Amino acid sequence: MSRVFSTSLRFRLPVLLFVFQGLYTFFSLFQDIQLMLLVGLGLLLAFMKGYGVSAVAYNFLLSNFCMQWALIVQGFIYHYHEGKIHLGLYNLLTAEFATVAVLISAGAILGRTSPIQLLLMGFCEVPLYVASEWLILSYFQAVDIGGSVTVHVFSCYFGLGASIALYRSGLQTGHPKETPSYISDLLSLVGAIFLWVFWPSFVSVLVHPGDGQHRAVLHTWVALSASVLTTFAISSLLEKKGKVSMGHLQNATLAGGVAIGTVADMAINPSGAFLLGILSSLACILGFKYMTPFLANKFRVQDQCGIHNLHGLPGIIGAVAGIATILLQALFQAVGLGVSVIVSLVGGFLTGLLLRLPFLAQPPDQFCFDDELYFQIQNNCSKFEVLMATSP
Amino acid sequence: MSRVFSTSLRFRLPVLLFVFQGLYTFFSLFQDIQLMLLVGLGLLLAFMKGYGVSAVAYNFLLSNFCMQWALIVQGFIYHYHEGKIHLGLYNLLTAEFATVAVLISAGAILGRTSPIQLLLMGFCEVPLYVASEWLILSYFQAVDIGGSVTVHVFSCYFGLGASIALYRSGLQTGHPKETPSYISDLLSLVGAIFLWVFWPSFVSVLVHPGDGQHRAVLHTWVALSASVLTTFAISSLLEKKGKVSMGHLQNATLAGGVAIGTVADMAINPSGAFLLGILSSLACILGFKYMTPFLANKFRVQDQCGIHNLHGLPGIIGAVAGIATILLQALFQAVGLGVSVIVSLVGGFLTGLLLRLPFLAQPPDQFCFDDELYFQIQNNCSKFEVLMATSP
Amino acid sequence: MSRVFSTSLRFRLPVLLFVFQGLYTFFSLFQDIQLMLLVGLGLLLAFMKGYGVSAVAYNFLLSNFCMQWALIVQGFIYHYHEGKIHLGLYNLLTAEFATVAVLISAGAILGRTSPIQLLLMGFCEVPLYVASEWLILSYFQAVDIGGSVTVHVFSCYFGLGASIALYRSGLQTGHPKETPSYISDLLSLVGAIFLWVFWPSFVSVLVHPGDGQHRAVLHTWVALSASVLTTFAISSLLEKKGKVSMGHLQNATLAGGVAIGTVADMAINPSGAFLLGILSSLACILGFKYMTPFLANKFRVQDQCGIHNLHGLPGIIGAVAGIATILLQALFQAVGLGVSVIVSLVGGFLTGLLLRLPFLAQPPDQFCFDDELYFQIQNNCSKFEVLMATSP
Repeated sequence: MSRVFSTSLRFRLPVLLFVFQGLYTFFSLFQDIQLMLLVGLGLLLAFMKGYGVSAVAYNFLLSNFCMQWALIVQGFIYHYHEGKIHLGLYNLLTAEFATVAVLISAGAILGRTSPIQLLLMGFCEVPLYVASEWLILSYFQAVDIGGSVTVHVFSCYFGLGASIALYRSGLQTGHPKETPSYISDLLSLVGAIFLWVFWPSFVSVLVHPGDGQHRAVLHTWVALSASVLTTFAISSLLEKKGKVSMGHLQNATLAGGVAIGTVADMAINPSGAFLLGILSSLACILGFKYMTPFLANKFRVQDQCGIHNLHGLPGIIGAVAGIATILLQALFQAVGLGVSVIVSLVGGFLTGLLLRLPFLAQPPDQFCFDDELYFQIQNNCSKFEVLMATSP
Repeated sequence: MSRVFSTSLRFRLPVLLFVFQGLYTFFSLFQDIQLMLLVGLGLLLAFMKGYGVSAVAYNFLLSNFCMQWALIVQGFIYHYHEGKIHLGLYNLLTAEFATVAVLISAGAILGRTSPIQLLLMGFCEVPLYVASEWLILSYFQAVDIGGSVTVHVFSCYFGLGASIALYRSGLQTGHPKETPSYISDLLSLVGAIFLWVFWPSFVSVLVHPGDGQHRAVLHTWVALSASVLTTFAISSLLEKKGKVSMGHLQNATLAGGVAIGTVADMAINPSGAFLLGILSSLACILGFKYMTPFLANKFRVQDQCGIHNLHGLPGIIGAVAGIATILLQALFQAVGLGVSVIVSLVGGFLTGLLLRLPFLAQPPDQFCFDDELYFQIQNNCSKFEVLMATSP
Repeated sequence: MSRVFSTSLRFRLPVLLFVFQGLYTFFSLFQDIQLMLLVGLGLLLAFMKGYGVSAVAYNFLLSNFCMQWALIVQGFIYHYHEGKIHLGLYNLLTAEFATVAVLISAGAILGRTSPIQLLLMGFCEVPLYVASEWLILSYFQAVDIGGSVTVHVFSCYFGLGASIALYRSGLQTGHPKETPSYISDLLSLVGAIFLWVFWPSFVSVLVHPGDGQHRAVLHTWVALSASVLTTFAISSLLEKKGKVSMGHLQNATLAGGVAIGTVADMAINPSGAFLLGILSSLACILGFKYMTPFLANKFRVQDQCGIHNLHGLPGIIGAVAGIATILLQALFQAVGLGVSVIVSLVGGFLTGLLLRLPFLAQPPDQFCFDDELYFQIQNNCSKFEVLMATSP
């Protein structure tokens, strides 16, 4: 880190906006996300009766380690000028996104790792995240403002990969301490609600101010709200005696926020966001019910917090929604081309037919390309007059 | 919901204000209120030892269902243009107010209802709330910026009405699970503090920016702060051995926020807000101590969370304060008229007496209405000169 | 309190800034700090298994009492005009700082005092805080934007002073209830994290908007983040079997925020902030391990929450950092003087030597101070021409 506090935002936003937003809005949204990560995610992970303190504390430690490491890695790539990394609130925000990825990945191996192992995972994952994000957003110019692909899908499969490498056959049949207590379940639900309340901040913080950001906030809220209703409905349908599963409630209510990430600021409409919220929480619940046991038993993928259900599946749904929205846009563009060609061709032909009406005095063939048919030409006897004179 | 994101705020606020506030401030205050409803109210309701998860989860479900339903109902009334409901952050905010009403009402029947019953209550209450609000604010042009009457009084008596219809004689003598545990009491207190901290956001969010909003924030804080001191003082005076009741602490500390709603942005002064805070928390405590048992025993009104004490009585106090403030203003207007008449009449008479002083050369009767007494008139002999000449 | 709502901020900030910040930013930061004090500090203090409700409730009561009392005391000194105290959001903010001091002091005597004793302490401490702050900031013109000295050091030694006066030999060997439960420890950690997340708001709220405030936010974050890593590292090194102490985790992670207060907006660099974070959390942990028992045994200073470790030692480190930064700045100023003198003297001498090069046609002594050497003078024979003519 370096002495000079550059305001890299200055180059992105007008000065006036910087004064209000550069500090105040960014700061407010930055703190929303800090609250999500440290209180919301911390409590969400604290669902086990004897691992709550560890979940909150390791989340706190790992978050700080990864933020600092991401500031350095991203700093050398994006903010390195004249021997110094320029530091600003914007750096903290982008470092926060890299940190989110690590914290999600850690969910797959929660309770099975030492803090040193977690830090080492963060040390390796952050540069890979930064490289992946650069490839996706800068090299391939993909769009993913709320991180469905860059954050959620990446972190999910990174975490599952790590989990496979850390497979323990001794935990295959579960562990007596891998259960919640009444209070830990309640606190985990409160953590999920913290995440739920501030999720629109996470999705919209990197959108340019204006209509796009307004859309991102609204779409995220709609998707999240659809997920809540879907979770209660589907979970009570699938579970025994119509009872809602706490695990579903703590996770599937957030699935819409994951899935909306890619398309949040696009011109999808609220019903699209609503549909994404329904589909993603449905996928999340089905994932918990059928896919997590299947992966654990067949592929030895142990996923303590079910990150594949909350981040993997909804992230993929979000990515597909992005592709579909863009394909639809491409289709609309193609239809636009077609419409233009067809309307012009048919319209031109019909207009031509109209022009052939006899009373419109179309010139005879021999007077085509000749001024004198409709203009009086001076000085010498024109071909036209000769013709008129010689005509009987 | 509809494809077009209209910015209905644009028509209410200048564009510049929209950019900063329309999204940022509204968004920040919107999230404050989401935090109040989902974390604050959720935890506050989680005071029973075995019904905490349900309280938080049903509050979460009901909140989302009512928000969506209110967006549709209010959308058709206020935001329907050319076949589409225009959606913006402002809609979410007004939908949030309708939702608050339902969540409060649900407090009266907490623990005695199925989730389907709660959703059906929300389905019925939201349109009635919207109609009531329209009648109060648009038709009768009443003023109630912080919702003392429109939100708190309405939701209280709606909830009590529902409670009477759902009366169970079997619960008349209490239920063994209707008691708190140590941790549930602590978490409920933390929930109350969340509500307390963000209450000024709720009261001021719909006030037009400027001095009125500044006043609303300050008055709300003063009223809430007065309620806290009053609650500790009165509760320890009334309870056995001078011990503060947890129920009083979780409720009466918020009473000032309910009562200040109607007059928050008016030109009452801080001492008025302070007085409202004292009176409302006093009423709330006395309500818990004497009125809730009385209503339950005599009128079969079971009120699980004591919403009549926190929302009914303080809401009525707030309404009376609004009437009194407006009457006082009318009285001041009348006094203004009187002052004007009396000062002018007496002052005019006394000034007239002064004008009669002899050395002020008051014109004699016959020269009244005559230029020539004080002006030199040319060309012909004036009546005045004739008079002077004919005088001996 | 008084009828007129003055906007004392108006005199400090341009009107436009007032509209956005005066209410919105200040309001948002004010609520951040309310959340810190009432939820964050409340939960942090609730670490004992049977004193959690009291800790949260007394913190709530004392906070409100001191805010109101500070509004009056500070109002008479700073906001008294024409018989009235002018009230605005800025007053609430400065009153909040006085309140923080009392709430910290109360940490030293937590659990050993009645609520009346706490209120009386607040009644005495607030005017002393205001006087001390006035002496430090207004009279001696010291700089301490984040309150390392004015808030943390003051409140720490005030609390320790009160604790000495309230010494109880019966508690010297500990008390069976002076221990945490699993959940109280977890909630206390969550409280610390709330404080940690919003600490940058506390440090930067009184900095003038712009680069200084941006720096204050960044420095505070860097110091806090360094403290987290240091706490985990040092605590696990010092404790038995490499286990992290919950007390260290709940306190030393915040030490950087205390220490950064004085220099937060100065032109220290992030590495300076990082170093402060490391040193202050190291001091905090060593304080808990060695100094608290030493003070208790030798000097009869009982410090329930270890405020000397979290506020005293880091506050002093912050003050020393402030002095060092200013001395360094003075040194830099002196070096600046020296650099200016040396560069000018040596440079001037060397340039003079350069000017003496023979081909530069330095005038001979007798033509010094004479126009005619290089200018053609009209009308009469010049001394120069005479000289030329008389020369052979």
